[in-house]
Amino acid sequence: MTDKMFMGASTKQGMDIATKSREIIRGLIGDDVKDLNPAERDIVERIVHSTADPEYAKLVHMSSDFVDVAMASLRNNETILTDINMVKYGITQYPGEVECYIKNEEVKQIAKQEQITRAAAAIRYAAQNDFEGIVVSGNAPTAVFEAMDLYQKCEMNVKAIVGVPVGFVGAADSKEALKNSNIPNIVVEGPKGGTPIAVACVNSLIQHL
Amino acid sequence: MTDKMFMGASTKQGMDIATKSREIIRGLIGDDVKDLNPAERDIVERIVHSTADPEYAKLVHMSSDFVDVAMASLRNNETILTDINMVKYGITQYPGEVECYIKNEEVKQIAKQEQITRAAAAIRYAAQNDFEGIVVSGNAPTAVFEAMDLYQKCEMNVKAIVGVPVGFVGAADSKEALKNSNIPNIVVEGPKGGTPIAVACVNSLIQHL
Repeated sequence: MTDKMFMGASTKQGMDIATKSREIIRGLIGDDVKDLNPAERDIVERIVHSTADPEYAKLVHMSSDFVDVAMASLRNNETILTDINMVKYGITQYPGEVECYIKNEEVKQIAKQEQITRAAAAIRYAAQNDFEGIVVSGNAPTAVFEAMDLYQKCEMNVKAIVGVPVGFVGAADSKEALKNSNIPNIVVEGPKGGTPIAVACVNSLIQHL
Repeated sequence: MTDKMFMGASTKQGMDIATKSREIIRGLIGDDVKDLNPAERDIVERIVHSTADPEYAKLVHMSSDFVDVAMASLRNNETILTDINMVKYGITQYPGEVECYIKNEEVKQIAKQEQITRAAAAIRYAAQNDFEGIVVSGNAPTAVFEAMDLYQKCEMNVKAIVGVPVGFVGAADSKEALKNSNIPNIVVEGPKGGTPIAVACVNSLIQHL
């Protein structure tokens, strides 16, 4: 935790709200997170804080190496690559680069030529431009599949994937595939997920830097 | 709907996913939205699309004048004022201004001097700087309370409030107060809410411009 911020709050009023929220959340999900270590538990608590949905404590799954690998990447100031700008702008306290290429003109061209989504094309573009770091997808399953594919082909220097896309089409499949991969990862099982979950996870890690 | 985008998708692959998602959602929440008009139903469907949480169809409530008043404001290119930047950057297709003042230096001073949250100070700052339009809060209950207070005092030209802050502390109270006010509004009952809900609501309206 930095001196200045706690869960996004910077004033006394904001911090009082955040502290009380944490107490309520611990009462709601204590049993679900009792086997996690403190850094992992903090991630889950922050996800529940940002959604007011205690079900996430049952749906979030991390590989055992996720926190250590992701923290090492962040300590090295490696890049955080997000699928959409909304996720990028939720990550507010990182000293390294937070990038999103979905609106890049070259990405639009790749998407058109290759007949893939812009979210997937943006991941491919990053891989072709010396990306090294963590991929964070809160929205596009195709971004998760693309990052996994490039990682397996040794064409992208992905250290860990925050794979929490939301939706009834493709999202659950992408997260199941990621969970069963050898890439350090965090996922939300099933259709649920989204920007706040991705942001909560990353901001929780950053607060422990 | 514009020619180029459907629910954030711009490629054929993205649009196919969005269309299939809508079909699934209609199967899940059809009964809950049967009394809504098409524009209202579209908002609720898009909220469920962006959260994969069908419970929102039961929790979303709009005042009967909300869509008409909000659409009139958007057609006049009035300002959309968001509580945090994450919400701002999710609103991607609006021809008018989308503003967020939470990082403004003057806002930080107001928060410190008045001992209020930065989110509330940012609303006050907008009111003091000729704001006219729609207030959108996906995160800070204090932003909703501040906008309501200034509206009632005739000190802020708020046309409608998208009041969907998330959290276990203060959020439900702020939304209940807004729901019971005379301000055109949309709320989510209870603690749930957040950035994707706020963004889905606004983007649904914009798509009907």
